[in-house]
Amino acid sequence: MNIHAKRIKDLQYLLKKNRLDAVVVDRKLETSFLTGYKQEGVVLLVTRNGAWGFMPKMFVDDFNAFAGSFVKASAPDTLMGAAVQKARELKLKKTAFEPETATYQSGNFWKKSGFAEHAGLIQPLRAVKEGEELELLRKSCRIAAKAFGVLKPKIKTGCTERSVACELDHIMQKMGATGPSFSLIVGFGPNSALPHHETSDRKLRNNEAVLIDYGCVYGGYCSDITRTYFHGRPSDEFRKVYAIVDRSQKAGVAKVRAGVDSRDVDSACRDIIADAGYGQYFTHSTGHGIGLEIHEAPRLSVKSTGPLAAGMAVTVEPGIYLHGRFGVRIEDSVLVTRTGREILTK
Amino acid sequence: MNIHAKRIKDLQYLLKKNRLDAVVVDRKLETSFLTGYKQEGVVLLVTRNGAWGFMPKMFVDDFNAFAGSFVKASAPDTLMGAAVQKARELKLKKTAFEPETATYQSGNFWKKSGFAEHAGLIQPLRAVKEGEELELLRKSCRIAAKAFGVLKPKIKTGCTERSVACELDHIMQKMGATGPSFSLIVGFGPNSALPHHETSDRKLRNNEAVLIDYGCVYGGYCSDITRTYFHGRPSDEFRKVYAIVDRSQKAGVAKVRAGVDSRDVDSACRDIIADAGYGQYFTHSTGHGIGLEIHEAPRLSVKSTGPLAAGMAVTVEPGIYLHGRFGVRIEDSVLVTRTGREILTK
Repeated sequence: MNIHAKRIKDLQYLLKKNRLDAVVVDRKLETSFLTGYKQEGVVLLVTRNGAWGFMPKMFVDDFNAFAGSFVKASAPDTLMGAAVQKARELKLKKTAFEPETATYQSGNFWKKSGFAEHAGLIQPLRAVKEGEELELLRKSCRIAAKAFGVLKPKIKTGCTERSVACELDHIMQKMGATGPSFSLIVGFGPNSALPHHETSDRKLRNNEAVLIDYGCVYGGYCSDITRTYFHGRPSDEFRKVYAIVDRSQKAGVAKVRAGVDSRDVDSACRDIIADAGYGQYFTHSTGHGIGLEIHEAPRLSVKSTGPLAAGMAVTVEPGIYLHGRFGVRIEDSVLVTRTGREILTK
Repeated sequence: MNIHAKRIKDLQYLLKKNRLDAVVVDRKLETSFLTGYKQEGVVLLVTRNGAWGFMPKMFVDDFNAFAGSFVKASAPDTLMGAAVQKARELKLKKTAFEPETATYQSGNFWKKSGFAEHAGLIQPLRAVKEGEELELLRKSCRIAAKAFGVLKPKIKTGCTERSVACELDHIMQKMGATGPSFSLIVGFGPNSALPHHETSDRKLRNNEAVLIDYGCVYGGYCSDITRTYFHGRPSDEFRKVYAIVDRSQKAGVAKVRAGVDSRDVDSACRDIIADAGYGQYFTHSTGHGIGLEIHEAPRLSVKSTGPLAAGMAVTVEPGIYLHGRFGVRIEDSVLVTRTGREILTK
């Protein structure tokens, strides 16, 4: 069965389980996840045993090539209005929309039309990767991991952060990526101590830290990886901090397993850094899910809850940031498997 | 005066004009437009004579380097809750939020907190470009326009669409762009007839159309441009269709002027194509605003209303698409000036 047809089936199963008659979906990430058709501006109505797609006329042929066999496409005057109309025609009693992904205007339109907020229908489907998407995610991560080896010998004193980001992006695209998965972060020296540094024209000097947080998109799937190293002869403190972060990151990765609470991965990383006396310099959460979005469910943080499940893909990325001096972050993308984990960015 | 401080002042002027006490802003595009600080996760409360920024602790130092002189930053436990608290402390009677940019969850939070929907506060400020952003937009468009001249000689029989997109992206980044402004569209042969074609691994053959719809980001500003040409010896029909689209596009550009209704630019383009007998093959609207987003206000379509104003930047991009054969689209980014227009992608 076509992977997208299967996702619609999975969603229909969730409708039954949640005693819903239907759900409307209007954001591109979700409509493309469910149909394979990647244009913005498609509205879907999925019932327990059918699926309708409402879209501009110029999309219909192309949409049908993707999803014509399991979604009935049409081009009405108003897309959202047509979904409401169809729900009425079908005499559906309880149609849901997802509050997490709705805009203020779309969500309130659905609400006024008598549809009900219902969280956790498509997001849980997206969080657990399966079939073809596992291969796409693996390839995305493999490209990212391999690119660093090609890039590193080219990073020389005098390079700007931006030129390195540009080169890295190009290397990944030549390996098959369609683009970067977010605005690539290259930080030299003190810039490496800013977790969300914006890549600049600063030049690399001798004897300073290099932090590169990057990833690519392949087949729609986002990879995420961070590598830090010292350009020149590392100070004792850099070595020490690097070793702590490395230990912390490996402990976090080792904790990743189906059934483990997401918060426990965070504390596995955080405890090691805290015990080493650098707790206050690890200023962000430990990780996040990756997939069609660079940040998606689940989260791995002090506040996160819920067990990891086989098929989830997460980052593990502790760091220590010494303001004005240097920062170290080490990050891998990791897949939760049935029996443990698979490091995707190896 | 700092451009961002000026924007806050402009917004405060709009608050007075609209009899509002304050506005809350929680989307990155708008918070960065108003402060210069480009991280997601900042909540602003702008009153008639003050501005507060609520953000995670790790952002505060960096935020202050951008906007510390005109926005008071703090790191409370809950960002949106702190904005509501501050509005109460200040005894504000009417605080607005923008329904166009709110999410379902944020908008309804503001509503429940007693804030009021009020459209058209920051979006009109964003639509009219001024000062530094004019230069950034000009440079973004210049890079895009120049890149085509570098790229074209490299496009040869046997190239894939994706390899051309990759090369084009790299050329623009080497010229200073930080990345593409959207997923670049390269369409060969029949793929050129799909207005929203997804760039593929299809190879270029002799004697077929090449359509490239692309742009870059420079200093946060998006350019948008489309070039179509024939690889080989063009058929009479390609020549004819190209000439019609060219005439249509020039007529549209010539219509762009402050005070002209946006719909009239659309009809200037559409009438020429319709009169030539190809009306049904021009299946999309004529253009859209560009700026921090690749699609923003104003729109140029059959349905759009409202006059163009000096400082607005729009695309003019008519096309004719002959399904299964070829398509022609010609697009420039155009700035509305006080006395007429400036073609930015020349």
